[in-house]
Amino acid sequence: MKIAVIGSGALGLYYGAMLQRGGQDVHFLLRRDYQAICEHGLKVLSINGDFVLPKVQGYQRPEEIGPADLVLIGLKTFANQQLKALISPLVGDSTRILTLQNGLGNEQLLAGLFGSERIIGGIAFLASNRGEPGVVHHLAFGHIIIGNLLRDSGSDLETLAEVFNSCGIGCRVSGDLMKTRWEKLVWNIPFNGLCALLLQTVDRLLANPQTSELIREIMLEVIRAANAQGLTESIPFEYAAEMMQLGGNAGAYKPSMMVDREEGRQLEVSSIMRVPLEYGCRAGVAMPRTAMLATLLEQALTIESAREGR
Amino acid sequence: MKIAVIGSGALGLYYGAMLQRGGQDVHFLLRRDYQAICEHGLKVLSINGDFVLPKVQGYQRPEEIGPADLVLIGLKTFANQQLKALISPLVGDSTRILTLQNGLGNEQLLAGLFGSERIIGGIAFLASNRGEPGVVHHLAFGHIIIGNLLRDSGSDLETLAEVFNSCGIGCRVSGDLMKTRWEKLVWNIPFNGLCALLLQTVDRLLANPQTSELIREIMLEVIRAANAQGLTESIPFEYAAEMMQLGGNAGAYKPSMMVDREEGRQLEVSSIMRVPLEYGCRAGVAMPRTAMLATLLEQALTIESAREGR
Repeated sequence: MKIAVIGSGALGLYYGAMLQRGGQDVHFLLRRDYQAICEHGLKVLSINGDFVLPKVQGYQRPEEIGPADLVLIGLKTFANQQLKALISPLVGDSTRILTLQNGLGNEQLLAGLFGSERIIGGIAFLASNRGEPGVVHHLAFGHIIIGNLLRDSGSDLETLAEVFNSCGIGCRVSGDLMKTRWEKLVWNIPFNGLCALLLQTVDRLLANPQTSELIREIMLEVIRAANAQGLTESIPFEYAAEMMQLGGNAGAYKPSMMVDREEGRQLEVSSIMRVPLEYGCRAGVAMPRTAMLATLLEQALTIESAREGR
Repeated sequence: MKIAVIGSGALGLYYGAMLQRGGQDVHFLLRRDYQAICEHGLKVLSINGDFVLPKVQGYQRPEEIGPADLVLIGLKTFANQQLKALISPLVGDSTRILTLQNGLGNEQLLAGLFGSERIIGGIAFLASNRGEPGVVHHLAFGHIIIGNLLRDSGSDLETLAEVFNSCGIGCRVSGDLMKTRWEKLVWNIPFNGLCALLLQTVDRLLANPQTSELIREIMLEVIRAANAQGLTESIPFEYAAEMMQLGGNAGAYKPSMMVDREEGRQLEVSSIMRVPLEYGCRAGVAMPRTAMLATLLEQALTIESAREGR
């Protein structure tokens, strides 16, 4: 299968490397790591065992890749305005587009550009980060859940899931992509948001009973908003307790948004918070703490952006 | 009138200096500024004209001052556990105690220690800060509103207000101290809290429509809580618009809590937020944004305290 990886950060590089190691024909669109990877290949330092791909098909322009069977998108959502230009050269008649990006609204954006039938959403449960150019660190987890944007789409996801599984990427198909996306948000909104705002790891937030209670309250806001979206079945409130438990096991974990802020990148506030807030608002569900968190993060960034001259 | 000033920061030094210049017998309990003031006096650089008091009665222990007619408290509320030891030596039969501290709960604490009848609350509208030792900067405003803790107290505040006014300190008497305290909180909670959390001045917060809306929402929470406390008359919701206007006129103003955080001091989160939250909670008024703000501030400080070894 010809696979094009767009957005070759810690996520795109990891999944692309796993797919290539598993025998797929993977093409990476590269920016920062282009030279290092073309010269020395791609190294994955993984909890499941390190490996090196000495020869990697890397490109600087999507036109050089051409139409693919599958486009795998790992781009940060704050760069979504680039999707049209980056992906158009990769799309042929039977191309399917899988977005593994965070938050809500990405499938819809892609559907508007390339048609709903070919759009697949994926939720990645992956802890990874980039090392020096050409090196990616795989720290924990790694499985993905995929689902068609259109519930009645003819697109056969079981075969695709089989490809991922055969390459060592745990993959299952969800019949309700939106439910899976919202479930991920129950974790992402409080932990990404609060860790990024306070620049503190997950364990520190959970060590204070009042911050811990705030996290729980935000999770309940998200579950209430989710359950007003016409999901195939409701997310039970106990799901918040499970996510709190997961947080407790995560230790001194830095969610991606915290890393983004520490490294001076933009934050995915829009897809992880603002779009969910719109969905909640449209369904009449108040999310005052989520809204406050989004506003505080955006405001905190105004100073940093000014400092960086962005 | 023998007046003892306890908590000689920017507020205590300013009002004490004004009272001494107006002819009162003022005694300052000093710490940081003791040596400078005893040797060179106290200098006030004021928008209303600078002046110097070459000879100031400064002390390091309250026992040296002895019983006073009026004790004026300017101590930061996070140091309230010191009030008993600092004030006991100053209290005689007819001593009255005026707290000009921020937030709620200070009069009640003093009443428990020294009896309700002698406790006067004061709300200071003052922008001042300390310069080098022995120098205080008066930047804006300066008037105070005072009220007896007990509405039916016999304590004659009109005469006391006259003393303040005769010394150039605009002073009026409120018949409902609690209402005046809550009105001040409508300003203090959002502006002190958000400016301290984000380390941004008032004008920056108001420049973003979403932060501005958040400020307004917090003000409405405070007004709702206030109006559930059995005030003599309700605070109208339009009061929020007035405070927003006042904020708009304040420019690049740094509220005291922001200055406290910048200078590595503790913050008055308890008196300005936690006690009002308790009052709101007891009256059944939800204040989710205020609670979240208090929690975020306290959590932000855990790191800074650890760093300072406090």
